[in-house]
Amino acid sequence: MNTTTITIHTGTARSAVDITADASAFVAGGGDGLLNVFVPHATAGIAVIETGAGSDDDLLDSIERLLPSDDGLYRHRHGSPGHGADHVLPAWISPSVMVPIVNGELMLGTWQSIVLVDPNRDNPTRAVRFSFLS
Amino acid sequence: MNTTTITIHTGTARSAVDITADASAFVAGGGDGLLNVFVPHATAGIAVIETGAGSDDDLLDSIERLLPSDDGLYRHRHGSPGHGADHVLPAWISPSVMVPIVNGELMLGTWQSIVLVDPNRDNPTRAVRFSFLS
Amino acid sequence: MNTTTITIHTGTARSAVDITADASAFVAGGGDGLLNVFVPHATAGIAVIETGAGSDDDLLDSIERLLPSDDGLYRHRHGSPGHGADHVLPAWISPSVMVPIVNGELMLGTWQSIVLVDPNRDNPTRAVRFSFLS
Repeated sequence: MNTTTITIHTGTARSAVDITADASAFVAGGGDGLLNVFVPHATAGIAVIETGAGSDDDLLDSIERLLPSDDGLYRHRHGSPGHGADHVLPAWISPSVMVPIVNGELMLGTWQSIVLVDPNRDNPTRAVRFSFLS
Repeated sequence: MNTTTITIHTGTARSAVDITADASAFVAGGGDGLLNVFVPHATAGIAVIETGAGSDDDLLDSIERLLPSDDGLYRHRHGSPGHGADHVLPAWISPSVMVPIVNGELMLGTWQSIVLVDPNRDNPTRAVRFSFLS
Repeated sequence: MNTTTITIHTGTARSAVDITADASAFVAGGGDGLLNVFVPHATAGIAVIETGAGSDDDLLDSIERLLPSDDGLYRHRHGSPGHGADHVLPAWISPSVMVPIVNGELMLGTWQSIVLVDPNRDNPTRAVRFSFLS
């Protein structure tokens, strides 16, 4: 298995950051296999969605509707408002996604991108681990 | 890795299509390993649930409750009503699922089936990629 | 691939059981690869969240908010109240998660644990399959 960790700047607002280019660069030349994209943080997830046409912001809105930043709803509520919700998010939007690779290329559909979903406002940088098994 | 793409007819209504038999046929005789089921479309997901006893339709209802087909909620809203919601769905119901394989058989529980979840009414056929790594 | 099935006691209340120690023991000494954690039941999921600081109970609350135990909402509704909701859960909280392994160690973040989410009150014990591919 070939594995590495990269650092992504997600800033201090809720964010959905497209990391497809990083994943693509990692698997380039790697033959056929499966890529695992894993974020080793308890308040983030990995999604495969379209980006750049509104759906990334629509996703952040849906997170606020389904997992509201209302600290009264959560036992775990230190730090910034919404931190309790951020800790529930990874159960619904998993921190781990697998992508098939053929001839060193991501077998994503035309409109699919790999996105780091980071609702957490307190951590402006995040690690993401890529692991390629062939 | 052994990989192939099949075509599934999902029709023009919201649908949850059981693709377990297709997955089973793909891994038959394949020894031990992991099967990746991946739908390369930005408005679909893969779920592992019981089918044929109401839960597949219950799932479609829950999608409408949690990600309503109300275009006012979404920036991305061309095409059929609900298209904006359809584009958020894969963040919550991932387009990628892994299933363990032993002796060429899916290690699913008695009541588990692999289901293609396709809320999109505009695409009556969908591709699904199976990839088996052993 | 190295694979095994363990039995977890989840009791007769909704539960989120930390199985990280079991996963860690399974991969110890196993080199580099990917671990699949799979629950072969149609009313359970696997999540990667923080445990022991409230978020596990916050997750159970969020399940009740998003997938209410209101039998009127579900076609599938035999057994205990909420059984219909339990059958929808795995579409949203998948029964399958992959974790990267390096030098026989889980590459989880500091606050991440692997959790068996079992809303079902009728099954006090559950199987979980670990599969390690390197």
